[in-house]
This record gives sequence, structure tokens and C-alpha cells, in this order.
Amino acid sequence: MPNIHNFGAGPAKLPEEVYEILRSELTNFNGSGISLLETSHRSATYLKLNTDIQNVVRNLLNVPDNYKILFIAGGGQGQFAAVPLNLISRTGTADYVVTGAWSEKAAKEAKKYGKVNLVVPETDKYTGIPDQSSWKLDPNASYVHICGNETIHGVEFDFIPDTKGVPLVADMSSNFMSKKLDVSKFGVIYGGAQKNIGTSGVALVIVREDLLNKALPICPSILDWTITAKNDSILNTPPMYAIHIMGRVLEWIVRQGGLDKMAENATKKSSMVYDVIENSNGFYYAPVAKNSRSKMNIPFRIGSPDGNDALEKEFLKGAEALNLIQLKGHRAVGGIRASTYNAVTFEDVNALVSYMKDFAKKHAK
Amino acid sequence: MPNIHNFGAGPAKLPEEVYEILRSELTNFNGSGISLLETSHRSATYLKLNTDIQNVVRNLLNVPDNYKILFIAGGGQGQFAAVPLNLISRTGTADYVVTGAWSEKAAKEAKKYGKVNLVVPETDKYTGIPDQSSWKLDPNASYVHICGNETIHGVEFDFIPDTKGVPLVADMSSNFMSKKLDVSKFGVIYGGAQKNIGTSGVALVIVREDLLNKALPICPSILDWTITAKNDSILNTPPMYAIHIMGRVLEWIVRQGGLDKMAENATKKSSMVYDVIENSNGFYYAPVAKNSRSKMNIPFRIGSPDGNDALEKEFLKGAEALNLIQLKGHRAVGGIRASTYNAVTFEDVNALVSYMKDFAKKHAK
Repeated sequence: MPNIHNFGAGPAKLPEEVYEILRSELTNFNGSGISLLETSHRSATYLKLNTDIQNVVRNLLNVPDNYKILFIAGGGQGQFAAVPLNLISRTGTADYVVTGAWSEKAAKEAKKYGKVNLVVPETDKYTGIPDQSSWKLDPNASYVHICGNETIHGVEFDFIPDTKGVPLVADMSSNFMSKKLDVSKFGVIYGGAQKNIGTSGVALVIVREDLLNKALPICPSILDWTITAKNDSILNTPPMYAIHIMGRVLEWIVRQGGLDKMAENATKKSSMVYDVIENSNGFYYAPVAKNSRSKMNIPFRIGSPDGNDALEKEFLKGAEALNLIQLKGHRAVGGIRASTYNAVTFEDVNALVSYMKDFAKKHAK
Repeated sequence: MPNIHNFGAGPAKLPEEVYEILRSELTNFNGSGISLLETSHRSATYLKLNTDIQNVVRNLLNVPDNYKILFIAGGGQGQFAAVPLNLISRTGTADYVVTGAWSEKAAKEAKKYGKVNLVVPETDKYTGIPDQSSWKLDPNASYVHICGNETIHGVEFDFIPDTKGVPLVADMSSNFMSKKLDVSKFGVIYGGAQKNIGTSGVALVIVREDLLNKALPICPSILDWTITAKNDSILNTPPMYAIHIMGRVLEWIVRQGGLDKMAENATKKSSMVYDVIENSNGFYYAPVAKNSRSKMNIPFRIGSPDGNDALEKEFLKGAEALNLIQLKGHRAVGGIRASTYNAVTFEDVNALVSYMKDFAKKHAK
């Protein structure tokens, strides 16, 4: 097989080592003689796995004891409903900081369950995070919701907002486990696993215990954090294999040197791409303000700030020919997007920046 | 590896052939050069898979054109909320035929969203399906809910109820694809995949089109059948690998000869076990009325109708020693449970009945 460089935004590249483990465990999980795929979720085998993965999460992120770690089906979008269903009852209103397509979707879903206050002005061009001094926070909000990293627009928080005591809720679907985090500054952190920590099928939710027991009576049991916590994430049959893959990826992160190493790599890898863009004399164009540029997802245009369809098509075609794949920008914004998640290697990024330089040399006026 | 006979109730045994396919596809899905685990859900690769699996479902069950086939995260229990969230708005009330632990749970979840009418008398001993002439159906109900096969209590419908024009909704989590079905008699059929058609992480939902567009405004998007149908089950990142495994299992069913063959096998395999029970002079005891005995899950007691803890423990221990595994009855009912799903082979069942006969010979008074 040729070496394939997968820059997809999600489901995203997994480490080679994880595939080797999955292959070796497929029909004999942990010496049980059978596959995890056909193992009871009430078995000792699964109970141990369930506990082990919670412990890896707790150790990697240094999660304080007063936070529960939950595994829930339905991905990040399931949590867009779960967040208000579990939290908005306190005051009936919530603050949303909309900085891209995903926080926009989260705010829209929340409107089903209460009043949503938009903290920053509405826009359809997301290119940064408005200065916190301009935010209109509601002191009566049940919570403040942010999206830590906007996968489509490439806008990432480089700071933890001060919410004046109102619980901060962060969707970290695309930058979970890319850096250390002071979890105690958050009420809830959640994310789908299919970008930086596994494949699709499960959301990881970290919730402060005092925020439990507030779910609306209409909350479906499978989205109810309190019920999930009481049942140690085994209320019903969990998405066990997706949880297992997440565990194997997290263990890989530990072996690589933990979150400090992931953060160091992310800074280096993303800088390599941004540097080519910055040094291209405007041939490549990154729309996001420098202090909010994502280290995970790098959207850019070719030829002009609004892109050039023909050149971008040619770029993608040439990239495919070199096995640089899944680089197409999201249909909402067009252009190119390179995702440089944890599992993307320096070799992958080197191949990309080398191609970007060659392409610019060939096509720049 | 020794030959292991897995009688687990779910996540349940998968066919050997499916593991071979999963292994061969793990890091090169369908010639793409990468794993499905890291493939975009918007890629041509996944769009084809998504369509292909819907087609296999449609062909196997002969699903009429006016039904949508949906893949939704959150399993059967997710659908316990989704059913009322999508259907109860029409009249605000729903009929539940409670014949075991699962339909009991479904009815409980539905109470969050409207009035629930219990069609048959409440009981805590589920040993059959009360004759339909005794049912108290509400002609004003938005729908009538049944559980086609109660996994814990081993109670299976051997008929399709006449609901006098009210849409019939059936949870078939544990007998989906075990027999042919006149889908046109149902409004909705749903089930988690982890018993007869795959592993955990996804529910298969078949819904008649005229029942769409009725969801309550508070329905989370990920549980909304109308939104899911409009997005062809790719609203958000689906639980792709669980869906893929379901597809490979369904294709295996086709290769085995389809649902007629599955039904023939299920009748034969379950009869082999029930026959040992019936011919044991009361040493083994099956609590369920003969016409409602499940062909998928066979709960039984040893020594007396209420069981004998010591003997049952010894039975399980001896079974384990012969690699007859996951035979322990559900904690709600105790005793023994043998599940004889599609992937359980005649060799497996032969090994079980041979052990049952030996054990009875040794211990019967």
C-alpha cells in the first residue's frame, strides 16, 4: 500500500499503532477468547474497560475528583441538545458565544429548551473571537457555551473565558486532548470522539457533579447526564467498540508523552502550514485572525481571499495524486482545509507543505 | 483458540465470516487505502455504504417504498424516547402493550411526553402475551407500542396485533431479521443492532412516511426521524463502523439464504433447547407459555420453577468449562438464558443441549 496522508476533518486519521492493536484484539479481546463486539456490557471484561478508559481520561487531563466522566452515544450534536436539557432549568436562559458553524448549531438546538442569549454579534463570516471585553454576558444565564475549536472555520480559543461564576460549557469535539487544560475552570467539557481521540459513535462528557440533578423532565434518558453518571455510562448497551477505540487512542497519547507532547506537536505542525501560507505572498490566504487560528483545522483559500475555484480544484487533484487526501474545505466555506490532529504525523505535514510550496511556485503570478 | 460457544443476549455472537471481512477491511476499506474509521461521512465511499445497507434492509424485509430506513445512534433505549417524541403529538396519548422488562421501560420513558395507556394488566411476572380479545386499546391513541421479543423474559409475539387502524410500533431489537415480516402492517419497526444484526452503537428504524413531520418541538435533532430522513441518516457523523458491521451481517444473512432460512434455523435451534427442557421431567423449567416462547432468548430455571441457586451456579460453572459462555440469566429474573440468534450455529446449540442432558442426568433426583 502507498503511504496515505489523511488530513480529513473527521472521522480523522488514527495512529498506525492503534490499528495494529485493533487487529490483534478483533476476535480475542483481552484474552477472553471472543471479540469485544460480542461481549456483554455487563461482563467483568467490559466493566474493567469502562473503568480503565475513565481513568486514562482523568489522568491525561488531570480531571478533579468532583467531575464525572461519561460516555454517551449520539456524538457532539447529541450533546447540543443534552447541554440545555441538563442545565438550562436553573434559570431558563443560557449564553452562547457563537464563533463558527458548530456553536451556531449548538445555539439553535438550545432554543428548543429555553431562552438563548447571543453573547457576540451575529455574523456569517467567522474569522476570529471578538475580544472578551465586548461580550454581553447575562449574569442570570444557566451557563455560558463556547466551542473550543470550530472545525469548519478554523477558529480556536487561545484563552479560557472568564464567565463571572456562571458555569462554562465547552464543545471540544475537535481539540479534545490536543493540550493541557485547567478542567476546574469549566462546568462541562464535551466532544465527539471522531476527530482527535477516536472514531464516530461516542461523545466524551466531563461534568462537574454539582451540575447534575438539574435535567428537564423531558430529557431522554440516554441524554441525561445524571442517569448516565448513576449508571456509570452503562444505562443501556453503550457504543462499546467506539469507546474501546477511544481508549486505545488515549493510551497511545500517553505513550507519546501525554498532552504536553500533543500540544508541542500541534503547535509545530500547524505552524508549518501557516508559515507556508504567510510566506506565499498572498497566493495562499488564511482568513482567521492570527490569535484565533486553530492548531487542529487550517482552512485556507488559493489565489485570493475569496479563493479561485479552478486553482483550488487543481490543488486538490494534484494533492490526491500524491496521496494527500481529504483536504477539501467544508461545503459551507469552500477552499481547502488541512486538519493536523494528534495522529497526523510530521511526515504527513512535510508532504503537504512541500506540495503547497511546489504548487505555489508553479502557479503564483 | 478453543471453539467458544457464545449464547450471550447482546452484544451477541457475530458470524465468523463477518470477522474475516472486518479484518481484511480494517485499514483499507473498499480499496480506498484507508480505514472506514477515518473516512469522512460525506465521502463517496460512505455515501455508497449508507445507500447499500439501506438497500439490503429493504430487500431482506421487502420494505415497501413508502417506508424510510434510518440509522440512529443511541440504541433501542434512545428510540424509547424517540417513539413518543416523534409520534405522540397527534393525540397526546399512546397505547403500550407491556409484556416484559423492555416494553415496561419503553412505556416509562413515554410518560415523559404524553399520556400512556397500559393495554394489558400490570404484572411483575411476564410469562406470555394476554389474548388480544382482552386488550384495552384506546381508539384515540397516537400509536400502539409492542416489544416483538422480550430479551429478558423470553416472550415473543407469534402474531401481528390488529390495532384497528392505529399505527403499530414494534421494538424488534432482539428478533429483527429472524423471520419474514409484513412490514406494511407496522407504522414503525425499530431495534438496536447488537443482538441479531450487528454490534452496539446503532438503531435501525423503519418508519412509514406519513408518520413523519409530527415530532414534538422539544425533540432533540439526533432523535428526530423527520430530520434524520431528510438528511438520509447523515445529519451528523453517524456511528459509521457500527452501521458498517450491521451491513456486513445483513449481507451474510443474504448469503445464508435470507430470512426464510433464518426463521427455519431459529425454529430448529430453539426447539432443540425447549425439547430438552420439556423432556427433563421438570428438572429444567421454562416459565413462558408455549405459544409465546421466544425463538431468540430462552430463559429457564433448574431444579424448580423458582430455580435452585446452587444447581444453577454449578450449571454455569460447568458450562464455562466447556466454553459454553454468557449463559447467565438477566439479573432481573435470575436462572439461565440461552440466546439462539442468527449467528449462533447448530454446533453451538448441539454442544449446549448435550451438556444440558448430561447435567440433568447427573443431578436429577
